[in-house]
Amino acid sequence: MNNIQQQQKVIIACAWSHVFLFVVSTRSMASKTQVGFIGLGNMGNPMAKNLLKHGYPIIATDVFPESCKEVQELGAQIVDNPAEVADKADRIITMLPSTPNVIDVYTGPNGILKKVKKGSLLIDSSTIDPSVSKEVAAASEKMGAVFMDAPVSGGVGAASSAKLTFMVGGAEAEFTAAKELLSCMGANVVYCGQVGTGQAAKICNNMLLAIGMIGTSETMNLGIRLGLDPKLLAKILNMSSGRCWSSDTYNPVPGVVEGVPSGNNYQGGFGTQLMAKDLGLAQNTATNTKTPVPLGSLAHQIYRMMCARGYASKDFSSVFQFLREEEG
Amino acid sequence: MNNIQQQQKVIIACAWSHVFLFVVSTRSMASKTQVGFIGLGNMGNPMAKNLLKHGYPIIATDVFPESCKEVQELGAQIVDNPAEVADKADRIITMLPSTPNVIDVYTGPNGILKKVKKGSLLIDSSTIDPSVSKEVAAASEKMGAVFMDAPVSGGVGAASSAKLTFMVGGAEAEFTAAKELLSCMGANVVYCGQVGTGQAAKICNNMLLAIGMIGTSETMNLGIRLGLDPKLLAKILNMSSGRCWSSDTYNPVPGVVEGVPSGNNYQGGFGTQLMAKDLGLAQNTATNTKTPVPLGSLAHQIYRMMCARGYASKDFSSVFQFLREEEG
Amino acid sequence: MNNIQQQQKVIIACAWSHVFLFVVSTRSMASKTQVGFIGLGNMGNPMAKNLLKHGYPIIATDVFPESCKEVQELGAQIVDNPAEVADKADRIITMLPSTPNVIDVYTGPNGILKKVKKGSLLIDSSTIDPSVSKEVAAASEKMGAVFMDAPVSGGVGAASSAKLTFMVGGAEAEFTAAKELLSCMGANVVYCGQVGTGQAAKICNNMLLAIGMIGTSETMNLGIRLGLDPKLLAKILNMSSGRCWSSDTYNPVPGVVEGVPSGNNYQGGFGTQLMAKDLGLAQNTATNTKTPVPLGSLAHQIYRMMCARGYASKDFSSVFQFLREEEG
Amino acid sequence: MNNIQQQQKVIIACAWSHVFLFVVSTRSMASKTQVGFIGLGNMGNPMAKNLLKHGYPIIATDVFPESCKEVQELGAQIVDNPAEVADKADRIITMLPSTPNVIDVYTGPNGILKKVKKGSLLIDSSTIDPSVSKEVAAASEKMGAVFMDAPVSGGVGAASSAKLTFMVGGAEAEFTAAKELLSCMGANVVYCGQVGTGQAAKICNNMLLAIGMIGTSETMNLGIRLGLDPKLLAKILNMSSGRCWSSDTYNPVPGVVEGVPSGNNYQGGFGTQLMAKDLGLAQNTATNTKTPVPLGSLAHQIYRMMCARGYASKDFSSVFQFLREEEG
Repeated sequence: MNNIQQQQKVIIACAWSHVFLFVVSTRSMASKTQVGFIGLGNMGNPMAKNLLKHGYPIIATDVFPESCKEVQELGAQIVDNPAEVADKADRIITMLPSTPNVIDVYTGPNGILKKVKKGSLLIDSSTIDPSVSKEVAAASEKMGAVFMDAPVSGGVGAASSAKLTFMVGGAEAEFTAAKELLSCMGANVVYCGQVGTGQAAKICNNMLLAIGMIGTSETMNLGIRLGLDPKLLAKILNMSSGRCWSSDTYNPVPGVVEGVPSGNNYQGGFGTQLMAKDLGLAQNTATNTKTPVPLGSLAHQIYRMMCARGYASKDFSSVFQFLREEEG
Repeated sequence: MNNIQQQQKVIIACAWSHVFLFVVSTRSMASKTQVGFIGLGNMGNPMAKNLLKHGYPIIATDVFPESCKEVQELGAQIVDNPAEVADKADRIITMLPSTPNVIDVYTGPNGILKKVKKGSLLIDSSTIDPSVSKEVAAASEKMGAVFMDAPVSGGVGAASSAKLTFMVGGAEAEFTAAKELLSCMGANVVYCGQVGTGQAAKICNNMLLAIGMIGTSETMNLGIRLGLDPKLLAKILNMSSGRCWSSDTYNPVPGVVEGVPSGNNYQGGFGTQLMAKDLGLAQNTATNTKTPVPLGSLAHQIYRMMCARGYASKDFSSVFQFLREEEG
Repeated sequence: MNNIQQQQKVIIACAWSHVFLFVVSTRSMASKTQVGFIGLGNMGNPMAKNLLKHGYPIIATDVFPESCKEVQELGAQIVDNPAEVADKADRIITMLPSTPNVIDVYTGPNGILKKVKKGSLLIDSSTIDPSVSKEVAAASEKMGAVFMDAPVSGGVGAASSAKLTFMVGGAEAEFTAAKELLSCMGANVVYCGQVGTGQAAKICNNMLLAIGMIGTSETMNLGIRLGLDPKLLAKILNMSSGRCWSSDTYNPVPGVVEGVPSGNNYQGGFGTQLMAKDLGLAQNTATNTKTPVPLGSLAHQIYRMMCARGYASKDFSSVFQFLREEEG
Repeated sequence: MNNIQQQQKVIIACAWSHVFLFVVSTRSMASKTQVGFIGLGNMGNPMAKNLLKHGYPIIATDVFPESCKEVQELGAQIVDNPAEVADKADRIITMLPSTPNVIDVYTGPNGILKKVKKGSLLIDSSTIDPSVSKEVAAASEKMGAVFMDAPVSGGVGAASSAKLTFMVGGAEAEFTAAKELLSCMGANVVYCGQVGTGQAAKICNNMLLAIGMIGTSETMNLGIRLGLDPKLLAKILNMSSGRCWSSDTYNPVPGVVEGVPSGNNYQGGFGTQLMAKDLGLAQNTATNTKTPVPLGSLAHQIYRMMCARGYASKDFSSVFQFLREEEG
């Protein structure tokens, strides 16, 4: 896309401000100016560190002051709240636990939009309801800022090693600017379409993942009870039409695949509780769009039942354990 | 059970007997002696032809005389019933639509076991309840014959091009003899374990396949409704943890993958009705072994509902169409 | 919040205040003063008429002017928007199709809360998400008004004959005042607890109803296929532990019970689409409270699939028809 | 029904034997001759006692000799096996745990049919697959005997107090004779139709019961979490369309209904394991008849998961406990 096209696209989207166009280009060119980072939890912390490693000055905040220590020691400037971040940085990344946090961080009394500069680029990597992403994008646009949703796949490990996949929704013209930052933190940065489609892609993937994991667990359990060796069964599935990521890469049966949580008593990995949260988002989205998702819906219920039975913090592949017979 | 039968029994159990080796080698060495084939339907017909191509004389039968014509013209000898096949061939392959047919063909009044020769190798490629495979194996053993279950994956196309996968259960000592014949009809011949485990592997694979297909259909439908391009969504899933055979090889959304039934109005492929049958077997097996299979169970119900709504003969990927909104 | 508002707040919380009693009695004693009515659809229309019959002057509005004609001819005064209703009446009933309408009618630019009088009683009979009822109640309280949720069970027929059941949530001290109006339109007015519990009770009932209806349909279909006479099977269920409202009062099999939609090709009654909407509310509520509802969730999906297959406007008992075999 | 009608009906059903007709009437008239009873477990024991109380001499047997003691002390004659019972009694009642036991007791080497007298009336009160009832009936008919299936509803308590409900399938002409005996052990004896329909009715009832129980548990749990008082919620459901036996008679929430297992830590009542067994029968029957039962199927899976998680011997209403959140 050449420069004139880019300008036109921005113009079409925003249509009213020379200042804005100016600011946008300023932002893109001065790539090592300050970047704001809000949300320094298990995921946000290593992500912010990776930005620091790439030489970006960081202005950060988190509701828990102790979460800020580590990045502060590495040189990040810590401020009191999101509004102050927005006051000092025109590119901001947010990584928050759930929908209400995103609403608060953007539109709350000390939220980003209170002090956001025109032309700012706001990238939300939280996993939330795509309809909320759209609402926050609309509110940002009113303030002259650009909002993109960019949820990730890959867990804490991928965040540390900068191997995350980012699924990005928002104005295509801004994708290059977003990718510049996101590629410091991830191995894949995929443009998905209009605002909210990043969330949509994330939610869709995780719904299918959950279905595949429970399905693999049921299947492995059934096969074992019918006398099949688990490794052999996995091998057969993986060369046949039953193959899926949960059978060939992250098998829930201990000992079938090396280096996955099933081999470590389902410690680490992606918690059942987090999967239940994502399936709740998938369910809400499906309900709101009147889309039937029978297996996705049942997968949600199964992970919800597991949370109620003590599996909340185990890896989501522990559904294999949940389904197994407890007693002889 | 007379003395000789008893010996045979010991032989089967204890693979080092000389007598046993003798019987086996008699069969194995004379590899181009007659092979019996029972069941010349859509699958059995091309399978029998592939044996003929490899130079095996065929003695065949089918309840529908017209099904016999084609192989007869290619040189097969047609006889009246399974007992007569067993009278003339000591290696027999059966390919039948369902459990009752298998019971009848083996143990019925004109069944194989009425005239089976001692030491015969009986290979059943039908997809049936593994517990029935075990019963037929026990009945065969009483007559001094060896029974193996060897159901296939791959449809009519794979049967024609000799690209089937055979999943074989039975005495390991007989696997080589079975493989000699099966490899004329298939690209993969996998030893699964004791009698019934071939069926178990087949049933397990198809249950997970059904779950993956419905899951992929729900996910693609949801993603499309949330504004994602179907090809892009499939690409994202396939590079992420949602990846499965139904998303990357046999995508149910028209236009995403070339050369699959979804691109041809769900004609050809693997019928919904056949999938419902296999899921019924999976369900029965799970019920009998008291194994929870919540998603497999719901997948069965969905394919059953589809059969009730006119989808019986469409490819099983038509669940995507079934779940879509009919009207605005 | 100014002083008077604050007092009002205290008043609501502490039911013994003289000021409070004064405000309440002002409203209660003048019982035949004007009542506002917003939403004159299929349900609202006969409800408003019943209030007119009891001698209450009505001030009404609806987004569709033609919906207002009938009650206007019966003497109701029609105004332009909810704010104007609130300007003229201190008791207002709303009966709206869904959550966004309620939000708009109460908090929108021409909403009730723009001109609501202090001490007004606002009763919402729409079926919506209980968390929204709580939010609207809080917003009303800020304006010095009292909000109660009072969704109904019973359809258009019950609305016409004033036989509705109202499930009422809100301050117990206001229940008597609410009941005065609601009992003109219904046979039962049940106090359920704090704001939102009316909705909760409604949603819970309809979720169990849907489960019972699908369950009864599956059971009747299975029994018929096993050779049981449908009337006899219903009789046996109804004298046993399988008994439920769907089996004994509203049986989905044509001919088993007189005068229900199953006997009239599933015309009339409670539409599949409306049931799907209520199940969507139940699902959202369950998701938000992290409550597992496996059967409720699957019931939602089944009604959603039915909507996608042409059953949207048939009575929800048509699930019996949906599950039946289409062809021999 | 007058005498001639009765004779005609028998003639139509049996059509071939004067001896048979003679024997039948002999049997009916001599009502206090010996009655055989096979299966003296928790249910069979009190049932046999009730026959003794009514003056019927009992000839009984059970695989566990110690089960025979009590009825022996009350005057029953104990014999070694079912064949001996059939040798001495021409009316026999069987009450056995599951399908294989029934097959063995009737058709095994020491089974009833080895020595059954022509014209004998064989009544099976076990809960088994209706297709097996039909097979045993056919085998009995070949021996000149009449087989009826007569499974019960009501547990050990109802068996002791002779308050069982019998659902009877078989030749209508024999129903009077069967009822004579069954009414000594039960309060209701319902004729359901041809052989197997008694089982069908039982299975149908229990499937709907399981659905209603899980549905009620989900609903009560959801309502409680939304702030409703459980007793109030039950009251609302029971006056509305959500009403079912599980909500109004056997509520799974402790304290809502008196004298049910939920009030006694889910001790006593009808075990989860037994419900899982009956749902397995329902599932098998539905699979074999290609009938979709989505909720019945999921109910089966939930009870199966409960068995895997330590609930096997708790009352089936403990699903409420299973679904509740374990921890804050």
